[in-house]
Amino acid sequence: MTSSATVPFLKGHGTENDFVIIPDHQNTLDLPPAVVARICDRRAGVGGDGLLRVVRSEAHPEARAMAPDAEWFMDYRNSDGSVAEMCGNGVRVFARHLGAAGLVEGGDLRIATRAGVREVHLPKDPAEGVTVTMGRPRLSGAEVTVTVGERSWPAVQVDMGNPHAVVFVDDLAEAGPLRDAPALSPAQAYPEGANVEFVVVGKDPASRQVALRVHERGSGETRSCGTGACAVMVAAARRAGAEPVRDGTPVSYRVDVPGGTLRVSERVDGQIEMTGPAVIVAQGVLDAGWLAADQ
Amino acid sequence: MTSSATVPFLKGHGTENDFVIIPDHQNTLDLPPAVVARICDRRAGVGGDGLLRVVRSEAHPEARAMAPDAEWFMDYRNSDGSVAEMCGNGVRVFARHLGAAGLVEGGDLRIATRAGVREVHLPKDPAEGVTVTMGRPRLSGAEVTVTVGERSWPAVQVDMGNPHAVVFVDDLAEAGPLRDAPALSPAQAYPEGANVEFVVVGKDPASRQVALRVHERGSGETRSCGTGACAVMVAAARRAGAEPVRDGTPVSYRVDVPGGTLRVSERVDGQIEMTGPAVIVAQGVLDAGWLAADQ
Repeated sequence: MTSSATVPFLKGHGTENDFVIIPDHQNTLDLPPAVVARICDRRAGVGGDGLLRVVRSEAHPEARAMAPDAEWFMDYRNSDGSVAEMCGNGVRVFARHLGAAGLVEGGDLRIATRAGVREVHLPKDPAEGVTVTMGRPRLSGAEVTVTVGERSWPAVQVDMGNPHAVVFVDDLAEAGPLRDAPALSPAQAYPEGANVEFVVVGKDPASRQVALRVHERGSGETRSCGTGACAVMVAAARRAGAEPVRDGTPVSYRVDVPGGTLRVSERVDGQIEMTGPAVIVAQGVLDAGWLAADQ
Repeated sequence: MTSSATVPFLKGHGTENDFVIIPDHQNTLDLPPAVVARICDRRAGVGGDGLLRVVRSEAHPEARAMAPDAEWFMDYRNSDGSVAEMCGNGVRVFARHLGAAGLVEGGDLRIATRAGVREVHLPKDPAEGVTVTMGRPRLSGAEVTVTVGERSWPAVQVDMGNPHAVVFVDDLAEAGPLRDAPALSPAQAYPEGANVEFVVVGKDPASRQVALRVHERGSGETRSCGTGACAVMVAAARRAGAEPVRDGTPVSYRVDVPGGTLRVSERVDGQIEMTGPAVIVAQGVLDAGWLAADQ
């Protein structure tokens, strides 16, 4: 990164999963992990759960080869600077920015990510939620157990491209403060660990409403997890005996996460769709002297 | 706050105590606590430990009456929106912004705060630290005890305008993770609680170097605490038998906090001076729609 670069940025969030957005349409910025980590540092930088670099697919060889019909590529990085494939909350914020900046017209979009193309519906009204396809769930049917301290629960194993353990509880406080990662057994069920969701089903099962807390691998308890909301929806639907293929219509749940509310639906074709808020909070430029300084 | 307002902001930090800076020279912005809290929210807003509103003293009746010779008034708010008097790390960042924005020439400044006027030295080179007077310490001489879990230590009671308990330890890890506020006894020594500092003195006492961890009342363990660094310096100096009045020269310590390094000196007149980094990270505008939205 050259010392004279002026780097524009925006900050936004979806259900309080927050991101620094860096427009770099022509793919000219070099953002090594240390620079991403410095930008995402909540006290010494701008702060965010991750960074979304906005690149035209035609300017990015990898994206152009993978998704020639997707105009924009979301280069997603974790807050430690490492490359990540996809983020369901992030892609909504990414799409919201494209619309707010006049880079797309809204409606149905195709956005390239390292996990493939995501279909996104961006309403013209910024008060309306953004919808993104999240892939197809896989339920192992295995009997797995989640343990926090002295307490254990049976869990439903769901894969949404990443592994989840979904625990149904009577009260979200039941698992305590979740300071450490819950233990998973048998260990071979989750060779790389898992995100763990604790879920309360709404009193009226017909209302199809659930509320959750989530502990994310490597991050601790968070305000929201997009794939977690999808895993929970599928586990809750199966528990209630609901399947879109059987019913011939999509199955849709309201999923309350600590940072807001998502709508998660399982379509007749088996794809999970998630709809939720996507908010741009601020925009500006990173201080060039700060960005160039040795730290 | 009107819905059409475009509100400029900056973000900066001093030893990783971070602030949203809102220039409002003519004192026209209404920033109720809920709006400040929304701006300081680390995930749903910009994020910061506090907010520094930059107002000309002549445009602010309270500041003009108190400090007619201080051109700028620092209106400091905690991240929950409540009004606060002063912040030693914040006033450095405030002064740095004044210099970087061309609002002052640098050198010796007088900045109005709710705790009175602070004398600040702002070097022209932004790589150099900013110096601020922090008031005079009061040591009670009382025997106080700090307890974390099963372990207790004797502590030095220091008042820097706010109460501190300074514990000398052999290793900063000795107090464990500091998830909860340390217990203080006797309770009547600290009727409103205290910030607790754990301090290791450098191996060569002549080097006058200390390193600390701090648990702040109401905030938990933090990356830096300006008054805590000053309280620790005074406690360490007294422990080493150093007093500026006796020596006829200032006593100066290097104080390493988790977020960086401060230089703290006790002047011959008994005033504590603190010098440290002050960094502007980014600047821009808050999204008017976001700011105006009902939340």
